[in-house]
Amino acid sequence: MKMALEEALKAARQGEVPVGAVLVTQGLVVRGHNMVIQSHDPTAHAEIVVIRDAASRVGNYRLVGSSLYVTIEPCIMCVGAIVQARIDRVVYGAPDKRYGAVESMVRSFEMGLNHRPEVISGVMEEEAGEILRDFFSKRR
Amino acid sequence: MKMALEEALKAARQGEVPVGAVLVTQGLVVRGHNMVIQSHDPTAHAEIVVIRDAASRVGNYRLVGSSLYVTIEPCIMCVGAIVQARIDRVVYGAPDKRYGAVESMVRSFEMGLNHRPEVISGVMEEEAGEILRDFFSKRR
Repeated sequence: MKMALEEALKAARQGEVPVGAVLVTQGLVVRGHNMVIQSHDPTAHAEIVVIRDAASRVGNYRLVGSSLYVTIEPCIMCVGAIVQARIDRVVYGAPDKRYGAVESMVRSFEMGLNHRPEVISGVMEEEAGEILRDFFSKRR
Repeated sequence: MKMALEEALKAARQGEVPVGAVLVTQGLVVRGHNMVIQSHDPTAHAEIVVIRDAASRVGNYRLVGSSLYVTIEPCIMCVGAIVQARIDRVVYGAPDKRYGAVESMVRSFEMGLNHRPEVISGVMEEEAGEILRDFFSKRR
């Protein structure tokens, strides 16, 4: 999660909403951060950036046996991607009270999807939330 | 929608779950289909393929004023991507009774997300559903 926080700070320096992620899969540690603006890609949330990168490196769209660490609670798009990739474990830092799709806005993993990862939340929650609050307070 | 159906047939010929999509935005008509297996990308559903392609061509992650045509009801991942891209109108063919996230499994656009497109469903529903049924019956 420390690595994911570093990634979030990188995103902030690039003017992107600061969310970072790390995916551990088959001996690989893949890091990434939100890059929606710079890559002109509305789907380039941190979670999807590392999932696509890892799947491409592994050469398989299923990442069975992998763990995803992300600084902020995933949105519905990312929850969907996590399910598509069959990720085993999701660890996140701070909740996204507005659009978080694990426990905040909606509990998507409990909707009867065809895969349900283990979820651990609140890991380094303070640090993760602070990076985001700092970013938005400076932008105002 | 005819173009999207052609794309779905292309996907079937490539051994991919046959879903096709077309995105009309700022004078562009962007076609695409599901290519999860061949691109080793769990997020490469037809909707996301055309959204990423269009956003990259337009040079903006927001595709305001655009219409998405897709043969099958989008899943939660794709609903999330549609919201992120601020797509104005979603037209789809057949429902996905199991994982459709517009009206079947869950009504995601009614969950209080920060954008809500107009939705038109049931356009060439028979043809769209048949391509999918054909594909799965041949695979069994």
